[in-house]
Amino acid sequence: MKGKLITFEGVEGGGKSTQAVMLTQKLRSLGYEVLTTREPGGTPTGEIIRDILQNDKSGEPISPATEALLFCASRAQLCHYVLGPALERGAWVVLDRFTDSTLAYQGYGRGFDVEALRQMNDFATGPVKPALTFLINIPVELGLSRVLSRSNGARDRIEREPIEFHHRLHAGYLEIAKREPDRIVVIDGEKKQFDVADEIWKVVESRLLKH
Amino acid sequence: MKGKLITFEGVEGGGKSTQAVMLTQKLRSLGYEVLTTREPGGTPTGEIIRDILQNDKSGEPISPATEALLFCASRAQLCHYVLGPALERGAWVVLDRFTDSTLAYQGYGRGFDVEALRQMNDFATGPVKPALTFLINIPVELGLSRVLSRSNGARDRIEREPIEFHHRLHAGYLEIAKREPDRIVVIDGEKKQFDVADEIWKVVESRLLKH
Repeated sequence: MKGKLITFEGVEGGGKSTQAVMLTQKLRSLGYEVLTTREPGGTPTGEIIRDILQNDKSGEPISPATEALLFCASRAQLCHYVLGPALERGAWVVLDRFTDSTLAYQGYGRGFDVEALRQMNDFATGPVKPALTFLINIPVELGLSRVLSRSNGARDRIEREPIEFHHRLHAGYLEIAKREPDRIVVIDGEKKQFDVADEIWKVVESRLLKH
Repeated sequence: MKGKLITFEGVEGGGKSTQAVMLTQKLRSLGYEVLTTREPGGTPTGEIIRDILQNDKSGEPISPATEALLFCASRAQLCHYVLGPALERGAWVVLDRFTDSTLAYQGYGRGFDVEALRQMNDFATGPVKPALTFLINIPVELGLSRVLSRSNGARDRIEREPIEFHHRLHAGYLEIAKREPDRIVVIDGEKKQFDVADEIWKVVESRLLKH
């Protein structure tokens, strides 16, 4: 594929979304076509799946296995009809969360077999794989306090999980990164956001632009 | 689990649905609680998924990988909230198609890795596994001609697939059966339907009732 897919991962409150936006703007300012989208969603089918997952549209709870499969179904549709064609024509794609979130949340968080989820991700993405992933690392408590302060104390479903859940996520993310050091770069999310953005840009330049 | 799950599988036109109904009636006449349902579907979430798969609700085509994942998502929800609890309380469940259809259609038919699909099925079903599966075997051409004659020539999406697709399915089903002879019983679907029903009943009696 001619384009590059860059993903941002990590626990809540690390600044992933901000960094994804900043990197997108930087790349666009240099003339690159950059696509951003959201997961679940990003296609008409994916948006229906997003509704099922987020709004309890059906009036019944979603089982943990159903949740994981629906995330991957939305991802499969997005990869096949949007990300794959974009990367093929040479566009860059920057995503706030992708396959590693499934491993972290459904695997390390909810306790599903990580290897089974990895295979499900592979099934869903086909040839669409991140060229580079930034794991924005931040202590769980600091991340959650940032999230709470910006939302005036309102917590969504994931943020209401017990603190142990978030610690499992955090440790899981570091394990995922250890397994794929060539793809995943761990970034200290406690630094100031412009310093983080500079660090990220240096990695993008050296790994994806200078050759 | 105290109850038993019995599934019917095979190419189109073999008489699976009729046999599933006849077995259900037989079991009920003997006083068993028997649940039947449909896939995809059978739960509020599953019915939304069924809509996505069957009606092109979103106005876009569904990628083959998305299709397989959505089938499994609907199955996961059905197993978790309906089939598992029913089997736990001692009910029987009779299904016209289940996990082997995913292996046959998405694996042997569409060419996805059968082992990956097997793991996705396991992920979706958790502890809910068929105790017994009847593969109603019928030559592809005979099956399709039966389907066409009963629908006055109207063909659905699967029935419009080229004949080679159906031959791959047919051969795939026989391979699936060969791998699990303790679970899967191949039945000759060219016989008269009451003879087929008798044969099925004898297997159910000897395997699931007489011990």
